[in-house]
Amino acid sequence: MREISTAALQMGPIQKSESRAEVVARMISLLEQAHAAGAVFAVFPELTLTTFFPRWYVEDQAQVDQWFEAEMPGPHTAPLFARARELKIAMSFGYGELTPEGQHFNTSILTNREGEIIGKYRKVHLPGHSEYDPERAFQHLEKRYFLPGDLGFPVWRNLGGIMGMMICNDRRWPEAYRVMGLQGVEMVTLGFNTPSVNSQMSSEGPEDRLFHHRLSCQSGAYQNATWVVAVAKAGVEDGHSLIGGSLIVDPNGKIVAETKTEEDEMIVHHCDLEACNFGKSTIFDFKRHRRIEHYGLITQRAGAEPPD
Amino acid sequence: MREISTAALQMGPIQKSESRAEVVARMISLLEQAHAAGAVFAVFPELTLTTFFPRWYVEDQAQVDQWFEAEMPGPHTAPLFARARELKIAMSFGYGELTPEGQHFNTSILTNREGEIIGKYRKVHLPGHSEYDPERAFQHLEKRYFLPGDLGFPVWRNLGGIMGMMICNDRRWPEAYRVMGLQGVEMVTLGFNTPSVNSQMSSEGPEDRLFHHRLSCQSGAYQNATWVVAVAKAGVEDGHSLIGGSLIVDPNGKIVAETKTEEDEMIVHHCDLEACNFGKSTIFDFKRHRRIEHYGLITQRAGAEPPD
Repeated sequence: MREISTAALQMGPIQKSESRAEVVARMISLLEQAHAAGAVFAVFPELTLTTFFPRWYVEDQAQVDQWFEAEMPGPHTAPLFARARELKIAMSFGYGELTPEGQHFNTSILTNREGEIIGKYRKVHLPGHSEYDPERAFQHLEKRYFLPGDLGFPVWRNLGGIMGMMICNDRRWPEAYRVMGLQGVEMVTLGFNTPSVNSQMSSEGPEDRLFHHRLSCQSGAYQNATWVVAVAKAGVEDGHSLIGGSLIVDPNGKIVAETKTEEDEMIVHHCDLEACNFGKSTIFDFKRHRRIEHYGLITQRAGAEPPD
Repeated sequence: MREISTAALQMGPIQKSESRAEVVARMISLLEQAHAAGAVFAVFPELTLTTFFPRWYVEDQAQVDQWFEAEMPGPHTAPLFARARELKIAMSFGYGELTPEGQHFNTSILTNREGEIIGKYRKVHLPGHSEYDPERAFQHLEKRYFLPGDLGFPVWRNLGGIMGMMICNDRRWPEAYRVMGLQGVEMVTLGFNTPSVNSQMSSEGPEDRLFHHRLSCQSGAYQNATWVVAVAKAGVEDGHSLIGGSLIVDPNGKIVAETKTEEDEMIVHHCDLEACNFGKSTIFDFKRHRRIEHYGLITQRAGAEPPD
């Protein structure tokens, strides 16, 4: 057994008016619950520190920058890191990253049990659009506020296992899982903020959105024989609803734990990394079965090109 | 609407002792049922014409070759093609292909409504092993009897849409769907022979096998916004059980029809290819969202290489 007792720490809604200090206090409370439940690893959502601001169209860059962190840890998040160090609990969470060069990314980090940042990931698959779209029920301006991630899909050794990160929409892209699978990943963490209704098709509501979410996490887990820990920011934020459905999925693709609310809520599972071995050495023993000579289009073209 | 009324024609078991003539008679009967139900496209399983022979270890190549077809159509299958032409029903089915050069492939073909073969696919992802394995509950010798497919994952225009084929284990590999998705595929057909118990883990029974089957077909359909028509050879063959669960999956990843038996059984659905458009133009508009600069490992390495 190589067990990582893992807590998925779902966050309820964060209103625009809520301060970083209020949010960090909630995070610390969840972290303490996770520690009390025996967890050594705590996973928080995408953009944990703020409301899901890509729903708002804002032209003033100074106003936009208030949703970003120029330092990590920074003044607001230092107490979170301090508490994690005291509790010896490793963690992952997402935030808006503003670099010294003025670049903006949708980022997540991974820490070890000493509270040191050992990994950083910047979201590659940005959904949505970059200009105000009057045809949508609400905006989804990730392509406006963020650059596509420039760090690829790295993995890190942590807590005795091999860990990778993705963020929200990445989970719908099998390429993201596979690049990590090809590095032997055993646990993928991902945070998400997923509107409960498709902004471009009002008939696609929360049931469908949860279905696609689960399908994407479960297939990624199964097809790479890895644990997947998917954590929502959920509930009604600024009048807009986000799905819950935080999940822990085993390397067989089965959901072993799922949240029941759209509030701050913890689920914990003892994730045995040895459970990855069967899949990785049989049906998904990539070296024996993958035929890369036939996969060329995957890296040759971004878009679809129908035949003549 | 660009509707293809499609029949998934599940075959019950085919015993080792059953003749090609008997099998083809069953296929023609199913084809007639499909035509009577208004279908213009009929999809049969993998290795439709014989028992799933990779479960048998045979050293005598002449005996092995009896499971293969040297011509298509050939003497046994000519009546099937003739009936399909009369009924003006296009079809896809799988068989063991023996080439003039003596190569063996696990192959499927696609015909148009005139009964002409317009596409051929040779299975790329061969599961199992090549030598007798005493540790398995039964053998799965696809790597012994077949060469890996050498035709890639092409697509063809047929019946007003863009069609591709895969076979059985291919459905577990998102690369297979994606290469076709990058050619705009709107309907993927696949036949399968899936043992009801994992030969290397007896606790993985039919429920798990059906779960993984559905998960793989549904995620492939959703993530490429394509119809998937998956057709089983099912039931107890030569004393060995194969799952049923033939499916028609819509481009949203939802199962719209599924067989209920492990016998010869038809399901039909009016597949509207226009239903692919929403996914292909929004969340899975590949050109806007895919970031091929980060997918390099997918084509650079076959096997997984954990970090140092």
